[in-house]
Amino acid sequence: MLKPLGDRVIIELVEQEEKTASGIVLPDSAKEKPQEGKVVAVGSGRVTENGEKVALEVEEGNNIIFSKFAGTEVKYEGKEYLILRESDILAIIG
Amino acid sequence: MLKPLGDRVIIELVEQEEKTASGIVLPDSAKEKPQEGKVVAVGSGRVTENGEKVALEVEEGNNIIFSKFAGTEVKYEGKEYLILRESDILAIIG
Amino acid sequence: MLKPLGDRVIIELVEQEEKTASGIVLPDSAKEKPQEGKVVAVGSGRVTENGEKVALEVEEGNNIIFSKFAGTEVKYEGKEYLILRESDILAIIG
Amino acid sequence: MLKPLGDRVIIELVEQEEKTASGIVLPDSAKEKPQEGKVVAVGSGRVTENGEKVALEVEEGNNIIFSKFAGTEVKYEGKEYLILRESDILAIIG
Amino acid sequence: MLKPLGDRVIIELVEQEEKTASGIVLPDSAKEKPQEGKVVAVGSGRVTENGEKVALEVEEGNNIIFSKFAGTEVKYEGKEYLILRESDILAIIG
Amino acid sequence: MLKPLGDRVIIELVEQEEKTASGIVLPDSAKEKPQEGKVVAVGSGRVTENGEKVALEVEEGNNIIFSKFAGTEVKYEGKEYLILRESDILAIIG
Amino acid sequence: MLKPLGDRVIIELVEQEEKTASGIVLPDSAKEKPQEGKVVAVGSGRVTENGEKVALEVEEGNNIIFSKFAGTEVKYEGKEYLILRESDILAIIG
Repeated sequence: MLKPLGDRVIIELVEQEEKTASGIVLPDSAKEKPQEGKVVAVGSGRVTENGEKVALEVEEGNNIIFSKFAGTEVKYEGKEYLILRESDILAIIG
Repeated sequence: MLKPLGDRVIIELVEQEEKTASGIVLPDSAKEKPQEGKVVAVGSGRVTENGEKVALEVEEGNNIIFSKFAGTEVKYEGKEYLILRESDILAIIG
Repeated sequence: MLKPLGDRVIIELVEQEEKTASGIVLPDSAKEKPQEGKVVAVGSGRVTENGEKVALEVEEGNNIIFSKFAGTEVKYEGKEYLILRESDILAIIG
Repeated sequence: MLKPLGDRVIIELVEQEEKTASGIVLPDSAKEKPQEGKVVAVGSGRVTENGEKVALEVEEGNNIIFSKFAGTEVKYEGKEYLILRESDILAIIG
Repeated sequence: MLKPLGDRVIIELVEQEEKTASGIVLPDSAKEKPQEGKVVAVGSGRVTENGEKVALEVEEGNNIIFSKFAGTEVKYEGKEYLILRESDILAIIG
Repeated sequence: MLKPLGDRVIIELVEQEEKTASGIVLPDSAKEKPQEGKVVAVGSGRVTENGEKVALEVEEGNNIIFSKFAGTEVKYEGKEYLILRESDILAIIG
Repeated sequence: MLKPLGDRVIIELVEQEEKTASGIVLPDSAKEKPQEGKVVAVGSGRVTENGEKVALEVEEGNNIIFSKFAGTEVKYEGKEYLILRESDILAIIG
């Protein structure tokens, strides 16, 4: 298992087939394009300057859309994941 | 349904016809031009460094004007939306 | 009506004639030149990192001077307005 | 009257003659050169992230020295003024 | 012994052989590539603007993945280490 | 008298002769070189985002070393001074 | 004596011979190389935005490693020192 730190989230990319199924289609445009993923692990949250820990809004199992160029790719036990900060996640699909 | 995170808002663009109806016409000028939209979903708010969650000022159904180059386009169940941060919204038309 | 968000303010530009009347004349210089306007609507204020809402100092009806290159132009019901942040306002003329 | 906003201050430039009188002479050097002025109006102060308003240290009538390239020039009722932030003021001459 | 300061962490790089054993394989891509390491010492934590010390999430002995270009190399008693900030650590493997 | 604002300090430069006397000699190197001065006036302190005023550590009469390119030169009643922020002061010689 | 201000620390560089003795050897690499030093004086600490003074973690007499290009060189009573911020110190050797 990979346990992300702070406000980080680990996601699996959702393939093009599933993407169509869940209804997300990305338009052709010059604007920044988001991508779909599924949350497989969440960090324990960020700590504010007040010393409080703020839990994440997303949960394991959420389907999300995120900024395309965000995050770091990693392969673990043969599968590919992406580690993002929650602030790179735009919305939950649900 | 798409549920935006934090201080994000999902809007539908308001077409040129409606734009005339609600009274917004954009002047020809070199300045940054705003655009009109309708809020279809709002996030739960941003968390301050004090650990408090601050609810958004805009609500579902509000007609708004926003900075033209802000946000990320997404197509969901055949319709196009834009995901913005609330700080990219200039005013509510009401 | 347009309702500005946060610490934003909507102003009408004050024309050259009125400008002379209220006494503001802009000098010829290489420095940044301010411009005169009249406040027609104010936002509910900004929220500090402490979670408190800070009301604006300017009020509807105030004549103000502001940084020339600030803000976003918008035409609403046939009239032109400018949407500024309060921090772009230099002084109230009163 | 002009009422500056926040931590802003309105000053009259002190002419070269007065400058000699009060004792400030600017050296010839490559360093940033300060300039002398007289405070004619002060804002109500800045609001910290804690929501507290912090009053200005300078008062109406103070002779001050300030960073030469700071501020915005404005002509009001035939006289020229400069609108500065208090942080551009280096010292009070007293 | 090396004792890292603040939110710093000292790690040993995990060699390619161990990397395969623990299951991390880095994909070939243009994205930023993470690297695997083992935590050998942790700092006492960062101090927030509220004056509170926030302990680190990682502990001595954790296997971690971190941003490849982060940190400072140091050789101590014949062994090589890397000193990182905790914010450069992406996830704990375990 | 000049009264510096906020966290500012007014110093007299200490001449090369005195510099030898107090023991500071600057090495020939490509690194940033500090300079020696004597504090003649201190501001009342900076105000934190919590609204508290933090008094300066340096006092009138302290001999200090400071970053060479910091501050603003000013001539007052025939003497030259430098106005610095306390953060440009490296150490007190004592 | 030199008394550093705020979160600053004064160190003596540790020569190559001592460096070998204490076990630090710097690898040949393109990465930023740290250097070894001994703390001879520490400041009273930084003041947070909450108005609290945070004492330093390092103490007089500590052997430390720090970022090579940090700090300001100064010669005092014939000896060379380096004045650093504590944040430029990576670890204590002990």
